[in-house]
Amino acid sequence: MFKYERQINYYETDQMAIVHHSNYFRYFEEARTAYMDEMGYPYKRFEEMNCQSPVVSISCKYKKPIKFGETIVIKVYITSATRVRCNFRYEICDKETDELRAVGESEHCFIDRDGKVVVTSKVHPEFYEKFISLIEE
Amino acid sequence: MFKYERQINYYETDQMAIVHHSNYFRYFEEARTAYMDEMGYPYKRFEEMNCQSPVVSISCKYKKPIKFGETIVIKVYITSATRVRCNFRYEICDKETDELRAVGESEHCFIDRDGKVVVTSKVHPEFYEKFISLIEE
Amino acid sequence: MFKYERQINYYETDQMAIVHHSNYFRYFEEARTAYMDEMGYPYKRFEEMNCQSPVVSISCKYKKPIKFGETIVIKVYITSATRVRCNFRYEICDKETDELRAVGESEHCFIDRDGKVVVTSKVHPEFYEKFISLIEE
Amino acid sequence: MFKYERQINYYETDQMAIVHHSNYFRYFEEARTAYMDEMGYPYKRFEEMNCQSPVVSISCKYKKPIKFGETIVIKVYITSATRVRCNFRYEICDKETDELRAVGESEHCFIDRDGKVVVTSKVHPEFYEKFISLIEE
Repeated sequence: MFKYERQINYYETDQMAIVHHSNYFRYFEEARTAYMDEMGYPYKRFEEMNCQSPVVSISCKYKKPIKFGETIVIKVYITSATRVRCNFRYEICDKETDELRAVGESEHCFIDRDGKVVVTSKVHPEFYEKFISLIEE
Repeated sequence: MFKYERQINYYETDQMAIVHHSNYFRYFEEARTAYMDEMGYPYKRFEEMNCQSPVVSISCKYKKPIKFGETIVIKVYITSATRVRCNFRYEICDKETDELRAVGESEHCFIDRDGKVVVTSKVHPEFYEKFISLIEE
Repeated sequence: MFKYERQINYYETDQMAIVHHSNYFRYFEEARTAYMDEMGYPYKRFEEMNCQSPVVSISCKYKKPIKFGETIVIKVYITSATRVRCNFRYEICDKETDELRAVGESEHCFIDRDGKVVVTSKVHPEFYEKFISLIEE
Repeated sequence: MFKYERQINYYETDQMAIVHHSNYFRYFEEARTAYMDEMGYPYKRFEEMNCQSPVVSISCKYKKPIKFGETIVIKVYITSATRVRCNFRYEICDKETDELRAVGESEHCFIDRDGKVVVTSKVHPEFYEKFISLIEE
C-alpha cells in the first residue's frame, strides 16, 4: 500500500463549500502517479517504454465531505493485474483523524502510442513482475 | 430520457490529446442540471425548497476517447428513486455518428441545508410525483 | 465583434458561491475558439495549416461576481495584429441585463508544431488578410 | 519573499502537452494561500476575522511552457498594500534550473462576508502591520 498526502486547494471547492466530487478522480490520479514514481516507473520512463495506462472504468463512493483547509491521505492499493489490465483501489482519509472520506476503484489497460494492447508480461517482464508483486487483496 | 448537447473545450483535453477522464463527471452534472431545469426544478427553485441532492456514488466506463472539436450528446435517464434517494444513468454519444463513448451512473440523496435527510414524498410530494413518473428501466 | 453565449456550470463555482476567477480564462478561450470557427478557421483547419496560437500573456479585471444559474455573453474583439502576433479583448456581460462582469485581454503568437514563429502574412496570406480585416479599436 | 514548491499534475496538461495557461492562476492561489498560512493568517483564521480577499485583477506572462513531470517553485512577493487593497507578484521557476517560466501579478481587496470594504488598518491593525512589513519592491 502506498500513501500520498495532499492539502485541499481553495479552487477545488464548490458552492456547497466542499470539494467538488469530480476532483476526487484527480486526487486518485495524483496518488497513482506518485505510486508509479515510487515503484521506479515514473510516467516519463513508462512513456519511453512506449506504454500508457488509460482509465477503462472508475468509480467513487463518497462517505463524508472534504473541506478546504484539510489535509487528506490517499491510500492506494493494487488489487489485481493481468498481463494486459490492472486495478487500483483508493481510500481517502483525513490526515488528522484517519476518518474515511471516500473509497474508489479504477481499471486500466496497457496500450502503446498507437493504441495497441501491450502484453506487459512479454514486452516488459521486469515491470510486470514488480507490479504483480505489489498486489494486495 | 433527456438529451443534452455540448461541444468539447480545448482546456478539457490532456496530453494524450483526449478529454481527461475526470471531465466526464462534469458533463454528467451539466446534463443532470439541464434535465432538472426542463423538469421544472432548476437548481434555484430546488434550493428555495431547502433541498440539495449531493452525489453519494458515481462511476464511468470509457468506451472510446472524446476529442476536441467533437460535439457530444449526453443522454440522461432516471433509473430509480426512493423517497430519499435517486439514481441516474448517462450515455455519452458522438453527435454525428451516435457512437457510444462512455456510460455512467450516479446515486444521490436528498438533504436539506443542515445535512438532514429530506423525505421528498412527504415534504415535496409534487416534486416526488413528477420525478418518479420519469423513471425508465 | 463576436458574441459567445454560455451558461454557468455548478462545478465552476467555489465556496464563495461565485465562479472561481481562474475559470474566466477558460471562458475567454471558448469564446475565442468559437470566433475562429465563425471566421472559417476552426482549430482543426488551423492545425492542418501547421499553425498554433499559444497565449503569450493574459489578464482579467473582475467587476462583479458571476453566479451559478446565470447566463453570460462574452464579447470578443480582435484589437490588433502584426504578422506574428495578435491581441484579443473580452467583455463578459450578464445576458439579461448586459451588465459588465469582467474585462480581459490576451496576446498570442503564431508558431508551428516545432515552436518556430509563423509569419502569417507570408505563409498564410489569406488567413492574415481575413484576420486583420476584423481588427477593432 | 515566500517560496512554494509543487509538482505538475497530469490532468493539468492540455493537448499541446504543456500545462494549460488557466492553471497558472490556480498555482498563484495555492502559493498565496501557503504564504498567508506561514504569515500566521491561514484562511480559517482570516474567515473568523470576517475578512475575505477576492481577486480584483490578475495577469500572467508566459515565458516558457511547463510540462508534466516537472517541479516548479512559485516565488510570491507582496509588492504593495493600502488599508483596503494589496498586490502580489509571482514568479514561477523550474525547481532544478531556476529558469523563469512565468511572471504574474494580482490585486485584491479586503471585504467582509456582506461584501463591505474592510479597512484592515482599523479593524485588524495587527494583521495590517504584519502584512505591510512584508512589502518588497
